[in-house]
Amino acid sequence: MNQLKGKDLLRITDLTTAEIQGLLDLASKLKSGELQPTCNKVLGLLFYKASTRTRVSFSVAMYQIGGQVIDLNPSRTQVGRGEPISDTARVLDRYLDILAIRTFEQKDLETFAQYSDIPIINALTDLEHPCQILADLLTIQECFGSLSGLTLAYLGDGNNVANSLLLGGALMGMNVNLGTPEGYKPASEIVKQAKELAIDGAEILITEDPVTAVKGAQVIYTDVWASMGQEDLAETRIPIFQPFQVNDQLMSHADHDAIVLHCLPAHRGEEITDEVMEGKRSRIWDQAENRMHAQKALMASLLGIV
Amino acid sequence: MNQLKGKDLLRITDLTTAEIQGLLDLASKLKSGELQPTCNKVLGLLFYKASTRTRVSFSVAMYQIGGQVIDLNPSRTQVGRGEPISDTARVLDRYLDILAIRTFEQKDLETFAQYSDIPIINALTDLEHPCQILADLLTIQECFGSLSGLTLAYLGDGNNVANSLLLGGALMGMNVNLGTPEGYKPASEIVKQAKELAIDGAEILITEDPVTAVKGAQVIYTDVWASMGQEDLAETRIPIFQPFQVNDQLMSHADHDAIVLHCLPAHRGEEITDEVMEGKRSRIWDQAENRMHAQKALMASLLGIV
Amino acid sequence: MNQLKGKDLLRITDLTTAEIQGLLDLASKLKSGELQPTCNKVLGLLFYKASTRTRVSFSVAMYQIGGQVIDLNPSRTQVGRGEPISDTARVLDRYLDILAIRTFEQKDLETFAQYSDIPIINALTDLEHPCQILADLLTIQECFGSLSGLTLAYLGDGNNVANSLLLGGALMGMNVNLGTPEGYKPASEIVKQAKELAIDGAEILITEDPVTAVKGAQVIYTDVWASMGQEDLAETRIPIFQPFQVNDQLMSHADHDAIVLHCLPAHRGEEITDEVMEGKRSRIWDQAENRMHAQKALMASLLGIV
Repeated sequence: MNQLKGKDLLRITDLTTAEIQGLLDLASKLKSGELQPTCNKVLGLLFYKASTRTRVSFSVAMYQIGGQVIDLNPSRTQVGRGEPISDTARVLDRYLDILAIRTFEQKDLETFAQYSDIPIINALTDLEHPCQILADLLTIQECFGSLSGLTLAYLGDGNNVANSLLLGGALMGMNVNLGTPEGYKPASEIVKQAKELAIDGAEILITEDPVTAVKGAQVIYTDVWASMGQEDLAETRIPIFQPFQVNDQLMSHADHDAIVLHCLPAHRGEEITDEVMEGKRSRIWDQAENRMHAQKALMASLLGIV
Repeated sequence: MNQLKGKDLLRITDLTTAEIQGLLDLASKLKSGELQPTCNKVLGLLFYKASTRTRVSFSVAMYQIGGQVIDLNPSRTQVGRGEPISDTARVLDRYLDILAIRTFEQKDLETFAQYSDIPIINALTDLEHPCQILADLLTIQECFGSLSGLTLAYLGDGNNVANSLLLGGALMGMNVNLGTPEGYKPASEIVKQAKELAIDGAEILITEDPVTAVKGAQVIYTDVWASMGQEDLAETRIPIFQPFQVNDQLMSHADHDAIVLHCLPAHRGEEITDEVMEGKRSRIWDQAENRMHAQKALMASLLGIV
Repeated sequence: MNQLKGKDLLRITDLTTAEIQGLLDLASKLKSGELQPTCNKVLGLLFYKASTRTRVSFSVAMYQIGGQVIDLNPSRTQVGRGEPISDTARVLDRYLDILAIRTFEQKDLETFAQYSDIPIINALTDLEHPCQILADLLTIQECFGSLSGLTLAYLGDGNNVANSLLLGGALMGMNVNLGTPEGYKPASEIVKQAKELAIDGAEILITEDPVTAVKGAQVIYTDVWASMGQEDLAETRIPIFQPFQVNDQLMSHADHDAIVLHCLPAHRGEEITDEVMEGKRSRIWDQAENRMHAQKALMASLLGIV
């Protein structure tokens, strides 16, 4: 993975198919304990949005490879005092070894990357969530052995997770079916890019029919209907998204061995039923754990310690 | 202490007399430096209430045994976003090695324990404060050599600290006298449980007369009259609790060698006078320090590294 | 530097000329990697004001020497619950090895020092900012080889940074020119103290004429016109401070090799122009980085590990 040393991960498409596969295989070796790299590096976490999984999984991943973590809560830093991002970026670059950022605008992330030499990691923007997708792909690989040729159906809002799944799935040769209501589809340029990136004949399907989306899929994936910052829209969205709920009825159209993923937090009774979430197809807790392993592989690669 | 490996400490009664004594002796060895265990584990702190002593003493204890700490401030985590505790618990269980929780409802703590395999520690609930009591017992043992047969008098509100002192004292064969105003006594089931658990003929006394409570006691203990979240009640409570103030006059009824403890923060002039707090009987700063040693012993035992 | 072991740094004048010079030389050796001390100590950060640079630079400095850091956010600690500082100080003293405090009143810092045996570091008060000045002096020494005989011109508000520059510059034999508007000059006792401390014939000049201040100076230094907590005054201050803006025109009066420093965050177009900040004379990012090296030298000295 030496070719990743010093790079940024701003979008999942910053990685090639081979690089993603290399990260997944590295993550497996880190998870099993076959590889145990160590470093004396410091990770900064700059999170403009709330987080449990991302913050904890990044922190534990770093601690387990011997490093340290500084939680830069923007509300308590100068970042909130009108300093341009370019200044904050240049200062943090002098102190930190690697920086994971959760923010709204992809553009702000790019500004950080532009003014920093250290690796910058997208820990969620409105556009993408590449670290989540690395964990998802790791979970799918654990279940099915390989990725190419599988079909993943994502049901719900055409959000950042959907975007990264489209692009990451395409890069790994997976068919990606997106079942979303009219008006909530991903941007056409994302769909176009996914189609262009798709290998091994993988197909990208955007549909308003949830049954069509899940038909024969091995991986059923959903996310909350209203993302962080949109909570006030949740009530109005419920009737629109109701047909896309992942429940036993919808699951009956999926592949016989299909697994269910959810990037959490989940709103039981909305995008997913309690039965499915707690059912035998759910790999949701493994998926959550894999955030840690995938991000450890990513950081070890970007820091050049593997 | 191997029998504690992997267990939870939700209440002081989760420990037997022998286990408490083992923890106190282990804490002494850790404090003196006779034992220096190390680990590469990660402690999570999930605190729904403010804290200085608990947060810092847990963190330093963990650092001194080579571990790491993640401060999960609920206001910045998904915990505040309507996710059920059972989900948060299952995710944290995948990342952390041990988790200390400060919350209101004992029931929430139990839910965490139910859904986690890692050890869960009660770092204060409305019902109990077992880590405080371990530190208190350590301080008393340092002063008097042993615990059984001593008399501890607690003056003030029948709160979580009082509950844990009643139960923990009984388990160690200490007479526990509770001097509280009418209407502020501990729940009768706690008193009943303490009486049942008492060994070595130890007696439990609940009285509204502060002089009766402290008569001949070796340990005089008090706490703020209004706990966290009850600050608005402080003014109305002052006249009710005034007779229970730990001052020189009340101390004159205690044992000649009596020590004074307070779990802090203290409101001088309310539950304790400045003279007593700064006087020669005060072991309050040693008691505060012992939080660190007692919790280090506890974590080392629960993690199975001693 | 052994003579600093166990001491506090509450004001820059707590250090002698030789001690400052020793710290700067130590910082250079730590920066180059010539010296790599390690310890197993815990630093507490108690910050009542927002901070990026100070918090991160202290944390990384501590991590790089093997230590740990606890971020004591006062809003979440008992410190905000009416406990006297003397109590908080005595408790933290039992847990921590060293404590850096950012607060308003110098007096509060002194109370912490009075009740703690561990080293207390001023990480910014309304009176002084000694850690900033150590980083500044390190940056100037890197540029000019030595400090004595150089002229530093500070333009703007006679604030805590100005105070520490006056005193620290004087102690190192630097002429310090302060260009400030009428009504914003430093306290006369600070100016008097700087004049008394000045070595090697260094002169202290307080002037309302910015051109007089920068004339022939090798170091041009500015800071925001309204410090933290004064943001609402910013608008009214702009016309008053406008003549003291560090721009190309003003820089033309400085020494031919003059460098520009700013302790950040900067408000471009107010106290400094974008051209100067991004220009070839700017050493602002090196100065920010040097916070880390200077503070590492300071902590290693106070902890007695060098």
